[in-house]
Amino acid sequence: MITPRTTSQNGPQPADFTDVRATNLAVVLRFVRENSPCSRADIAASTGLNKATVSSLVADLIDRRLLRETGLTENRVGRPATMLVLDGSPYAAIGIEVNVDYLTAVAVDLKGEELLSWRRSFSGGTASAAQAVAGMAAIARRVVSRMAKEARQVLGLTVAVPGLVDVNGSVRLAPNLGWRDVDLCGDLTKAMRDPGFPVMVDNDANLGALAELRFGPHGGVNDLVYLTGEVGVGSGVIMDGRLRRGGQGYTGEIGHIEIDPGGPLCRCGRHGCLEAMAGIGAVLAPGVPPAELEPELDEVLRRARAGDPEILRILDAVGHNLGKGVAIVANTLNPEVIVLGGYFVTLAPWVHKRAEEEMFRRSIAPGGGGCRLVVSTLGHGAGALGAAARVLDSVDSGRLPALT
Amino acid sequence: MITPRTTSQNGPQPADFTDVRATNLAVVLRFVRENSPCSRADIAASTGLNKATVSSLVADLIDRRLLRETGLTENRVGRPATMLVLDGSPYAAIGIEVNVDYLTAVAVDLKGEELLSWRRSFSGGTASAAQAVAGMAAIARRVVSRMAKEARQVLGLTVAVPGLVDVNGSVRLAPNLGWRDVDLCGDLTKAMRDPGFPVMVDNDANLGALAELRFGPHGGVNDLVYLTGEVGVGSGVIMDGRLRRGGQGYTGEIGHIEIDPGGPLCRCGRHGCLEAMAGIGAVLAPGVPPAELEPELDEVLRRARAGDPEILRILDAVGHNLGKGVAIVANTLNPEVIVLGGYFVTLAPWVHKRAEEEMFRRSIAPGGGGCRLVVSTLGHGAGALGAAARVLDSVDSGRLPALT
Repeated sequence: MITPRTTSQNGPQPADFTDVRATNLAVVLRFVRENSPCSRADIAASTGLNKATVSSLVADLIDRRLLRETGLTENRVGRPATMLVLDGSPYAAIGIEVNVDYLTAVAVDLKGEELLSWRRSFSGGTASAAQAVAGMAAIARRVVSRMAKEARQVLGLTVAVPGLVDVNGSVRLAPNLGWRDVDLCGDLTKAMRDPGFPVMVDNDANLGALAELRFGPHGGVNDLVYLTGEVGVGSGVIMDGRLRRGGQGYTGEIGHIEIDPGGPLCRCGRHGCLEAMAGIGAVLAPGVPPAELEPELDEVLRRARAGDPEILRILDAVGHNLGKGVAIVANTLNPEVIVLGGYFVTLAPWVHKRAEEEMFRRSIAPGGGGCRLVVSTLGHGAGALGAAARVLDSVDSGRLPALT
Repeated sequence: MITPRTTSQNGPQPADFTDVRATNLAVVLRFVRENSPCSRADIAASTGLNKATVSSLVADLIDRRLLRETGLTENRVGRPATMLVLDGSPYAAIGIEVNVDYLTAVAVDLKGEELLSWRRSFSGGTASAAQAVAGMAAIARRVVSRMAKEARQVLGLTVAVPGLVDVNGSVRLAPNLGWRDVDLCGDLTKAMRDPGFPVMVDNDANLGALAELRFGPHGGVNDLVYLTGEVGVGSGVIMDGRLRRGGQGYTGEIGHIEIDPGGPLCRCGRHGCLEAMAGIGAVLAPGVPPAELEPELDEVLRRARAGDPEILRILDAVGHNLGKGVAIVANTLNPEVIVLGGYFVTLAPWVHKRAEEEMFRRSIAPGGGGCRLVVSTLGHGAGALGAAARVLDSVDSGRLPALT
């Protein structure tokens, strides 16, 4: 049977015609994830797999402790069925996010329940890539040892990076970290002395989109775009239920789309980029160092709440320009929902409605093509959470932990 | 096993957990399409399906006359194998394109070989939707009767429309045809008195993209964007090997993205839209009626070839503005290739290099993220050809003709 070609990095590249049993195991696992509790008969009826095959697949998943049986249900015609749910108590997925001013780490179980969430300050803007790798390895080792104490096997670790990540997990360019061509996946694996689980690296916006898809309040949505609002502006693109990476892994790079040829100079050397006109830099005084960003922003918010007309004018312009960028996304990708993340969450009371209005005005499809512009409920944690979700996704798509 | 959720309109909507045998039949059909000639053992080895299953599936496909056996090959170890190829001689797929000044029809066989290609002039800009439906039904009936004479069963018919087509095959808006909310799929099915095969309707840019994917010289490309250059400018988006439609079917609507807030008035009432700054309207004198379009364009080309500086300046600006639009596509979707279609093919000698240069300059990923900007080799025929390809795609994804 067909599995779609995926461009998942760092992992096996499933071909169109891949191993049937592994794919069927993943089908059953995903079915139980989405329909738990359910019986073997439910699985057979909904997937078209025959009952003997389902029984064999379920036995395998129980052996791997990915599923477990949970009593009987009487609530049906005929013989009561044994119900199945996700197990996963012996597993953990780890997500790490590196950014200009912090490192975060989260761990979740197979169901996506949070096991831990740590944040420490980090001078990402001035540290070298080697220092960053050492810092990430240190925090990762502490998470792994905590998981070991809980008798959990780590399924994998993903790092979220604000920059261009190619399909091999190399960071081609991360301007705000000052990185260029860093083999982060290789370096981190080495620094962790070959940890025995897959290490993956991905763009923070891509992972934010995965986090929204799995943990956000967007039930049933298959077409979603997530906008980061950190020092940079980027986006992660979900279409037909999957992250779309494009030819080399660089989809969603909307931060330097020209919004106005007469606009201000951007850090990239171009003029009138979305990032320069709608990013956090458009709100603060020019040249604020990363460490000063939070207090400066607090001051802006204080003045906005006090009704300072100059600040309100600036925020209105940011909302307007953000709307222009959002409209480009809506017209090009026709998502069901565009999620504003990062600092846009903080600024939402002043910029959300203005941007939404602009999106509808500029959308060529009636009613914005059905697109809603919403504010993330995951906040700045989306990157690390999405990084952990990336590990769960790879399990769900057939990369199962080995039988022990 | 999982088939990806597709948003194919007018057809069955395969769920995540769909009928296994139908999907497996499609896997085998596609494998033979891509690897013909091949043996049953080749299919089993590459798909992971067991040999007995493959034999049963192949027998079914031979019964449906989708595959046929073709002699033996000795060129292998052991017993010579019977080789399989696509049959499809008893089938045809029909594509029709309606536009401002013409109607075209093509028919292809299961392999995609062209069986006929007709074009007739048509006043799409002034005809009512009902007149257009009557015209399309007339040409379609003639194609069907020609196919009947060749003893071919029609697998389906798709109509390419320059406008917003929703997931039910209704045309929500086709500004250049003057249509709004036309149930084209329903009306045409009725006008053809229930022809006994599926009738589908799709956006011309989407179908152009499908045509490029199946018939264009882009071997192995999975991420492709096709730009129409008719009176309007639109795009069709292929990511990970499939057409991506978005939430309501309106992806790729780039024609009214604002390229310059100070730009000229667009037909849509906005200012500085891509269509107004890089479309065919930016090249011709304002208000040229559709019937005058070709002669006017010929005059422009004559002057360009003669080195008329005013025309060369205009074409240079069109190339520059087209490049801005193309850069937005490249940054947002990171395709491997962007194909310029329609009138852009005619204008290519003057606008292609300029647009490409601009795309690279504005791309945030190094080297344009690997994206190439190329000129279509299918010309204005891409829409109808893609419409026929759409029918073949639906067969390839499991909607097989019934056993007769």
